[in-house]
Amino acid sequence: MTAGTMTAGTRSWWGWGYEEQAIDDDELRRLAGRLAERFGTEVTIVDAPTLDALDLRAPRVAPPDSIADWCSTSMDDRAGHTYGKSYRDLVRAVHGDLPNPPDVVAFPRSEADVVDVLDWCAAEGLAAIPYGAGSSVVGGVECAVGDAFAGAVTIDLGALDQVVEVDRISRAARIQAGALGPALEAQLRPHGLTLRHFPQSFELSTLGGWLATRSGGHYATVYTHIDDFVESMRVVTPSGISESRRLPGSGAGPSPDRLFLGSEGSLGIITEAWMRLQDRPRWRASAGVVFSNFADAVAATRAIAQSALFPTNCRLLDGVEAATAAGVTGTAGLLVLGFESADHPVEQAMARAVELCRDHGGDVPGGVTSSDASDSSSSRPSDDAVGSWRSAFLRAPYQRNAFARCGVIAETFETACTWDAFDALHAGVTSAVGEAIERICGGGWVTCRFTHVYPDGPAPYFTVTAPGRIGSELAMWDEIKAAASDALLAHGGTITHHHAVGRDHDAWYRRQRPEMFGQALTAAKAALDPAGILNPGVIV
Amino acid sequence: MTAGTMTAGTRSWWGWGYEEQAIDDDELRRLAGRLAERFGTEVTIVDAPTLDALDLRAPRVAPPDSIADWCSTSMDDRAGHTYGKSYRDLVRAVHGDLPNPPDVVAFPRSEADVVDVLDWCAAEGLAAIPYGAGSSVVGGVECAVGDAFAGAVTIDLGALDQVVEVDRISRAARIQAGALGPALEAQLRPHGLTLRHFPQSFELSTLGGWLATRSGGHYATVYTHIDDFVESMRVVTPSGISESRRLPGSGAGPSPDRLFLGSEGSLGIITEAWMRLQDRPRWRASAGVVFSNFADAVAATRAIAQSALFPTNCRLLDGVEAATAAGVTGTAGLLVLGFESADHPVEQAMARAVELCRDHGGDVPGGVTSSDASDSSSSRPSDDAVGSWRSAFLRAPYQRNAFARCGVIAETFETACTWDAFDALHAGVTSAVGEAIERICGGGWVTCRFTHVYPDGPAPYFTVTAPGRIGSELAMWDEIKAAASDALLAHGGTITHHHAVGRDHDAWYRRQRPEMFGQALTAAKAALDPAGILNPGVIV
Repeated sequence: MTAGTMTAGTRSWWGWGYEEQAIDDDELRRLAGRLAERFGTEVTIVDAPTLDALDLRAPRVAPPDSIADWCSTSMDDRAGHTYGKSYRDLVRAVHGDLPNPPDVVAFPRSEADVVDVLDWCAAEGLAAIPYGAGSSVVGGVECAVGDAFAGAVTIDLGALDQVVEVDRISRAARIQAGALGPALEAQLRPHGLTLRHFPQSFELSTLGGWLATRSGGHYATVYTHIDDFVESMRVVTPSGISESRRLPGSGAGPSPDRLFLGSEGSLGIITEAWMRLQDRPRWRASAGVVFSNFADAVAATRAIAQSALFPTNCRLLDGVEAATAAGVTGTAGLLVLGFESADHPVEQAMARAVELCRDHGGDVPGGVTSSDASDSSSSRPSDDAVGSWRSAFLRAPYQRNAFARCGVIAETFETACTWDAFDALHAGVTSAVGEAIERICGGGWVTCRFTHVYPDGPAPYFTVTAPGRIGSELAMWDEIKAAASDALLAHGGTITHHHAVGRDHDAWYRRQRPEMFGQALTAAKAALDPAGILNPGVIV
Repeated sequence: MTAGTMTAGTRSWWGWGYEEQAIDDDELRRLAGRLAERFGTEVTIVDAPTLDALDLRAPRVAPPDSIADWCSTSMDDRAGHTYGKSYRDLVRAVHGDLPNPPDVVAFPRSEADVVDVLDWCAAEGLAAIPYGAGSSVVGGVECAVGDAFAGAVTIDLGALDQVVEVDRISRAARIQAGALGPALEAQLRPHGLTLRHFPQSFELSTLGGWLATRSGGHYATVYTHIDDFVESMRVVTPSGISESRRLPGSGAGPSPDRLFLGSEGSLGIITEAWMRLQDRPRWRASAGVVFSNFADAVAATRAIAQSALFPTNCRLLDGVEAATAAGVTGTAGLLVLGFESADHPVEQAMARAVELCRDHGGDVPGGVTSSDASDSSSSRPSDDAVGSWRSAFLRAPYQRNAFARCGVIAETFETACTWDAFDALHAGVTSAVGEAIERICGGGWVTCRFTHVYPDGPAPYFTVTAPGRIGSELAMWDEIKAAASDALLAHGGTITHHHAVGRDHDAWYRRQRPEMFGQALTAAKAALDPAGILNPGVIV
């Protein structure tokens, strides 16, 4: 009954991903060596944690017989569901620091089971923690709920993983919330359809998790957030089930779905949704544009964002990220551009985007790569800057497991701001975090990329890498994170563009959220979850 | 202190628009003659109503001295603010039937004034009816609030009409909620920017009204609803002011703005918003595509909606509408297609859209008209099908005043549904309404167009024209409207795509809205408006 048995590989109980794909010991030693050289310090490798060594608190409650069949109190399941996959989570797991495991992990097999487990939680005063695949990087699935609850039950939706119904005409499907990215795509493929929502966590995150956290996906422009792909949703709340009508658009009152999108399990448990789909793309074009000046790269990216050309990919990497993530050195900025279409060739749009880049001093050393999937002589490029970036992108979460074992502070944070605010935000965040890591870690670096862009502003994504002291990493990171978060808010950013709020961002979220909206949400929660059992401490 | 003095013309107190542009008596007689011929009945013209003849209830309350300077209890202001501009409103006004005028009309000059008038209403138990420019066609601004209130105060935001701040870099502006469409565009023009939100009510509707009702605008695809142009909003609630952060995108909890968008004045009064803007378009292309079969026209429109070509205009008129609204006869469907861009020529996109139409049997008798605003030899077409449609579109609301004086039932209703549901919805609604008008009116017709299209479905818009009996029109229309609304819901549509809910759609809105979301909204309202004074009976 573990999540691991439902997939092709064995899930790591403590870190990102499948054990079969983990970075091996040789690679880990090489990585540690490179980092030691770069930091000018020693880097020690800590053993990977083992379940046997854990001294997990005994379950404080037992599920009633009526639901016991699909509930687990095993150490494996409880340890594996204790944390998400943030740097804080990895470090705590590496050190066996799991003071708040769930008492029970429930694996409902149907919506009725979800109702039953919530009823049990409400009756017994247990915290109910909705869980998709546990890829939260913001403390969104933790059971640190305090003594007000008699226990904590994690509700793992993984068994609800079916595409239930497909409407080929409207290009939509009814999909259960627990479907992992690859499982969902595999079920859509026979219909020639795709959701094309590829967050970095794609392999091990679920539709329900994406919806609950307003995940940011594949599309750099237009349809960035999963929100925009929702036709309707079903949500189980302790007060009853909410189901919205399948509609392409509506102006009938405030959007019901938008209340649950981003509610992070605090208002209800999403069990399924009708999602808007895409035809599988046939034409593609990609290009890597280099700039000798970061400000020019930003200006070019803004011009494209405001052009209504709507590139699928429009990811600007600063000079350091260009080198480390795409192997392109000697540049101040690398703009990874991509267009795709199932309906028409995209060369003309790409040509105009490249022209806009050239107007701002950009250069395209590798030229534009185009492909037509129906033409067997054309194939997708994999050995250029764009391909390198893609591989590094998908491998990055595995590398973070390794960093956690090396005492290296390695974490990301992200935001969005208007274009007029970006220069000051970038300078302010870089300087605040730079000062913090210098003071706290004695070195390290912070880099920036845009993951998504809007006509009125980019979504900057920062990566911090710094030497930590084993045993003190969390305190060190918490201080860096506070400096970063304060700087984000001070410069007009949001505390999160697509990583969500969870427990880690709560203090800044409350500063950012309009007080009146907070009061409205609190009242809405009291109506839907009168006992306050759903993901306590998150959002509301 | 009347709204009329703030604009170029004199506002009709009872009907749509400016008196200077009203249909004159000769034209009215010709129209009545044509309708009589068509219906095979007599059509009587009722005199336009006059203020002098009204027997308006005396104001039941008087504003306190502290706010009296910008409040009015004049008959003009009270009569002019009694109704919106639906067919029901016009008929009632024509017949001098105004039992529930506001007792006071407040014209706040600042946000502080809005706070003051709401404080007065809360203290005295008065209903507070937010009012932009009164173009509601769903009973959204009426004072029929029942005896629970000591009186009703309409709060006209018209004096808050300024573009306060412009951010050229991010293409955004902070705009006060009371700005009418033309005033707002006039203030943006010197900056080379435009909101390009052109609902049919553009001339006499306000930004705040658009936001409160989730108005549908210029763009047939991608950015249809005003919702998507909102960066942030300020809303005065009885419990305090809510201000969201200016952000191009965010994943920090449920969207604060989406709670107020569509709240129709029931949760607070929107005083200003930062809106996303566009560069003024340079390149345009338009075409009118005719089809000999409506089903083919629908299939072509769906192909375009799913192509990601993103036309600006993609308006499908059925055969009758093609003839009456665009002067194109002998066709089963006219698809009015338009592309525009400030960045690049749009001929290629248009060519592909036309190709998709031809694949479905479409023909383009007038060819494609392209223009480049920077080229003086090219000008916008005005004498083709597209131009004819545009003129008729803008003139239609004036014609409705005339219909109301002829005892002719003339009203529209609109919806959205998924593509798979459209055929049955179209047949079901046409047949239900056709039967109703035959039974109730002895004749008339119902027509359909798409105002907006989404990848997963269209927004069909129906127009009913039928002979009424003077004095019984409202009862007749209410019965037709009920048949139409029941059919919309039965066939999977929404009760409104962009006309809003108001009082007229309330019964169907409540059937459509998820019960749990209704409970959440009710709780949110209690938090923001504890005395329940804001637009009672609407939405919550």
